[in-house]
Amino acid sequence: MNEAFNTLEFKNDELLLIDQRLLPSKFEIFVAKTYKDIEFAIRDMVVRGAPAIGATAAYGVYFAYKEFAKNEVEFIKACDFINNARPTAINLKWAIDRMLKVYHENKKSDNIKEILKKEAILIQEEDITTNKMIGENGLSVVPQNATILTHCNAGALATAGWGTALGVIKSAFYANKNIFVYADETRPRQQGARLTAWELTQAKIPSKLIADSVAATLIRDGKIDLVVLGADRIATNGDVCNKIGTFSLSVICKQYGVPFYSAAPLSTIDFTIDDGSQIPIEERDKDEVRFVGETQVAPLDMDVYNPAFDVTPHQNVTAIITEKGVIYPPFKENIAKLKKQFID
Amino acid sequence: MNEAFNTLEFKNDELLLIDQRLLPSKFEIFVAKTYKDIEFAIRDMVVRGAPAIGATAAYGVYFAYKEFAKNEVEFIKACDFINNARPTAINLKWAIDRMLKVYHENKKSDNIKEILKKEAILIQEEDITTNKMIGENGLSVVPQNATILTHCNAGALATAGWGTALGVIKSAFYANKNIFVYADETRPRQQGARLTAWELTQAKIPSKLIADSVAATLIRDGKIDLVVLGADRIATNGDVCNKIGTFSLSVICKQYGVPFYSAAPLSTIDFTIDDGSQIPIEERDKDEVRFVGETQVAPLDMDVYNPAFDVTPHQNVTAIITEKGVIYPPFKENIAKLKKQFID
Repeated sequence: MNEAFNTLEFKNDELLLIDQRLLPSKFEIFVAKTYKDIEFAIRDMVVRGAPAIGATAAYGVYFAYKEFAKNEVEFIKACDFINNARPTAINLKWAIDRMLKVYHENKKSDNIKEILKKEAILIQEEDITTNKMIGENGLSVVPQNATILTHCNAGALATAGWGTALGVIKSAFYANKNIFVYADETRPRQQGARLTAWELTQAKIPSKLIADSVAATLIRDGKIDLVVLGADRIATNGDVCNKIGTFSLSVICKQYGVPFYSAAPLSTIDFTIDDGSQIPIEERDKDEVRFVGETQVAPLDMDVYNPAFDVTPHQNVTAIITEKGVIYPPFKENIAKLKKQFID
Repeated sequence: MNEAFNTLEFKNDELLLIDQRLLPSKFEIFVAKTYKDIEFAIRDMVVRGAPAIGATAAYGVYFAYKEFAKNEVEFIKACDFINNARPTAINLKWAIDRMLKVYHENKKSDNIKEILKKEAILIQEEDITTNKMIGENGLSVVPQNATILTHCNAGALATAGWGTALGVIKSAFYANKNIFVYADETRPRQQGARLTAWELTQAKIPSKLIADSVAATLIRDGKIDLVVLGADRIATNGDVCNKIGTFSLSVICKQYGVPFYSAAPLSTIDFTIDDGSQIPIEERDKDEVRFVGETQVAPLDMDVYNPAFDVTPHQNVTAIITEKGVIYPPFKENIAKLKKQFID
C-alpha cells in the first residue's frame, strides 16, 4: 500500500516537492534545482517534518556539490547554509553529516557526483522502508477498535513516504484494526488540519478534526485509547522534542493513564545530548499567529511568542516506536543498547 | 477608568452592538431593533461572553414586549426563542428570567413598557458595577510583578463593560501592579487573538499573544504566576464551565502548582445544578474549524468535533472571584453561604 502522491520526487536532476504551504486548498509542486532552493523550501516550510527535511537536505548537498565541485570551502559553506535552515529537527544535521561522510570518503573518485546523488536517493528510499517498519512495529501498541489521537503531521508528507506516527495509524488501519482517529489541528501552522486531515481523508480512515484544546476533554472522558505522534529530536534519556502542544498532551495523558507514544526513526535520536534541555527550540515569525492565510486574526501591534516545538520529559512517554522495535523505559539504558546494536 | 468603546449601547430605542465577528480588522456597529435581531446577534456571536449575552438578552425581552404587548403567549414564545440562541451561558436565562419576573409583577401597569426598558438598562448598568467590584476583589490574588495567563475573552467585550477576568487584570494594571499578560488565542473563534489582544493593546497593558498549546510550557517553566479566566456557568459545587481549553489549562496548573482563578458575577452561578455534568455543552458549526475567515484550513470532507466549552472540576479551581468577594474551597459550602446572604 502506498500514497498516491510523492512528498518528494527526484526527476531529471530536480527535486519536486509538494508545496505543503498550500495544502489542502491547492496542490502545487515546488521545483528545487539548487541548494538555495532547498534551503528556502526547508526554512519556509514548503517541506516540513523531520524525516522529510532530512531527505530533502540530502539532495541539497548533492545540488551544492554540483555547484561547487571544484571549491570544497564553498561546498561545505553551502552545506552549513542548508543545515541552518531550521534548528530543531536533528534529521537535517543527520542527513547532511551522512552525505558529507560519503563525500569525504569518495571525494577523490571521478564518480563523486554520481555517488552523492545515489546516496541522497538511498536516504529517501531508506526512509520509506524505515517508516513501514515503524508502522509494523507500532501494530503491537494499537488495540483492536482503538481510538487514536495524533498531533501535527507525522505522515507521508512529513517523511519520504508512509509516515511515522501516521504510518503506525495507517498500518493499523490496513491491518483491519477498525480504528478511529482524532487529529489536532495544530496551531499555528495547522499541519493537523491541512496535512494530517488531508492524508486521513485521502486514505479514507475514519476520523475527526479538533481544535488543539479539545483533546484534553476527550482524554479525560476515556474517549482516547492512545496518543501517537512524531518527534523532531529525541535525547538519549528519552526526552521527546516535537511540535508545540505535545508536552501539554503528555501531561493530560499521564494524569488520566492514557498511553503516549512517539514514533520516529533512529535518525531522530540525537546521541550527543543527555536530555531535552539541550535542544534548541525554534521561535518562528509572529505573523504565523497574527494571520491565518490572508485573514488577520490579531491586532498588528500585539506582540507574539511563537515557539514551534516543546520538550516532553521521558517520564511522560510510554514508549518510542522505531524501525528497530518499540523502546520502553528505562529509556537511557534501552536507547544506549539500541545504539550499540545498530549505530556504533 | 473606562473603555473608549461600548460593547452594547442603548440609544433611540435601538441596541447598538460592536460586531465582534469583525474585530480586530474592522470596527462596525450592529444595530438590533427587534427580538429577532437580538437572537441572531447572540447565536451568530455578534455579541458573546456570558454577561454581555445576558445584558443583550434583557433588551431582547424589551423588544419582544414592544412587538407583542397585547399577546402574552407570543411574548413568552419570543423570550423562549432568545433563550434558545445558545445553550451554555447561564446568564442568558438569568437575564430573561429577571425580565420576566418584572413583567409578571408589573404587567397590569400602564407603564410596563417603560418598566421593562428600565430593567434592561439596570441590568446593563449593574453589570459594569459588578465587574468593577470583581476587579477590586481580584486585586488580592494578583501579586506585584505578576505574569498572568488568560484564555478566551472575559473583558469589556464579554460584558457590559470592564470585564470579569480581564477586569481583574485591568484593575491590577491601573493599581500599578507592573503586570505582564499572556493571552491564549483561543481556537477556533480566536476570541483571545481578536478580542482580548485588542483590549490589551487598547489599554497598553504589556502582553503577548500565544497559540493555546504554548501555555503549558510557560506554566511548567515557572513563567506564569496565576491564571485568571471567566466562566459561562458555575455549578453549586464550584465546577466551572468555560471556553474550550480551560480544563486543559487547569490540569497543567494543578500539576505545576500555579493558582487558577475563575472571575464571574453571581449571575453566572447556576443554583439549580449540583455539578458540571449537568451543563449542556454547545457544539458549534464544523466550518468554524475548517475555515478561518475566508481561508480554508482543512479538507472540506474532513469531519470535525467542535465543542465550544468544557467543564473544569472544582478540585482544579483555586478560587472564584465574584463581586461579593473571593470564594475559596470548600466551594459547595461557601457558594451556599453566598446564596443565603445575597440571593435568597
